[in-house]
Amino acid sequence: MLDQQSLALYLCADSTFFAGRKLERILEEAIEGGVGIVQLREKTASSREFYEIARAALAITKARGVPLVVNDRLDIALAAGVDGVHVGQTDLPLSAVKRIAGSKLFVGVSAGTVTDAIAAENDGADYIGAGAVFPTTSKDDAGKAIGVERLAEICAAVRIPVVAIGGISLDNAASVMQAGVAGVAVISAILSQPDIFTAARNLKARIGR
Amino acid sequence: MLDQQSLALYLCADSTFFAGRKLERILEEAIEGGVGIVQLREKTASSREFYEIARAALAITKARGVPLVVNDRLDIALAAGVDGVHVGQTDLPLSAVKRIAGSKLFVGVSAGTVTDAIAAENDGADYIGAGAVFPTTSKDDAGKAIGVERLAEICAAVRIPVVAIGGISLDNAASVMQAGVAGVAVISAILSQPDIFTAARNLKARIGR
Repeated sequence: MLDQQSLALYLCADSTFFAGRKLERILEEAIEGGVGIVQLREKTASSREFYEIARAALAITKARGVPLVVNDRLDIALAAGVDGVHVGQTDLPLSAVKRIAGSKLFVGVSAGTVTDAIAAENDGADYIGAGAVFPTTSKDDAGKAIGVERLAEICAAVRIPVVAIGGISLDNAASVMQAGVAGVAVISAILSQPDIFTAARNLKARIGR
Repeated sequence: MLDQQSLALYLCADSTFFAGRKLERILEEAIEGGVGIVQLREKTASSREFYEIARAALAITKARGVPLVVNDRLDIALAAGVDGVHVGQTDLPLSAVKRIAGSKLFVGVSAGTVTDAIAAENDGADYIGAGAVFPTTSKDDAGKAIGVERLAEICAAVRIPVVAIGGISLDNAASVMQAGVAGVAVISAILSQPDIFTAARNLKARIGR
């Protein structure tokens, strides 16, 4: 259901970073530049607004064969008909998500330790979002940085793909890939750049997948 | 699935009104006093927190045969295994909620007009929450007051039960019942009182069901 190749460059599309640019345009340029999977993250929108955002995003991603993931909100993911849901440690328990989502969604889980990553794999996670690798200001609840060594330990401990997240930039992307991850997830490294397409293309070239 | 009798006195348990009191204690006293249905409303809790709150509330309500409803968050409702979900005009569309919830949950819908109430009934709502009947400060997004006449029009226009909400107090509860509603929903009229049990009991006596 989830093609590991798509994980190489993973965009967390948090609308607080859109800076007045349109969601549709951002996704078109990011995908054109090499983004293989998109996650929507909305912490202030109403449920109806988040649903409308997810529907609009899906029209773009589906036409380009790129999976769309909703952060936290399993109900929005199911209602909008996206491809996956991503849950962190302050979201619904993975077991409940799996029970409700059934085979309709793949499920990603955030993990900052080997223990959490193994537990998520055992409970049926389809991939791990591991981090924050480096200190980051893009995500309030990212937690303490785990570093590249811990990241490599997580990759070695599970069979499901691991995506690195947190503080990843053009400068450190190649070294992060060495830890054995399937890809890198970014917010600012793409969304804080003036040219979305070029930012994505340069990152994609640097990670070499 | 939803017994109309339970709707007579409907408590919207918004934790911003708990004033340091424990959820479990509030629900026990409210139900003892005559509350027949409880809705949980959390706008700042994380999904995990809301889920834990719903699980804790369910332990109280289930043991007393009182249905538990989650506001807005269909995913929390399904994960926690409560009885119903309530959606307003800024929440997920009713059609999507019905499709996902299937027969697992009853569904309440907020409506402020006859048109919205009829649409909700046609789309499968199990009850209408009609209001705000009077001006209220308990609910930020309650909208403009509709008054008792409009409330009576809504009651006359649909076959499903209607619960009045918004600005309902011990003083006006009896006159609201005259509009043809199945019951009244309150926040402050119970939660802003020092004695939850007595507040519920007095309201229950006043509405005469």
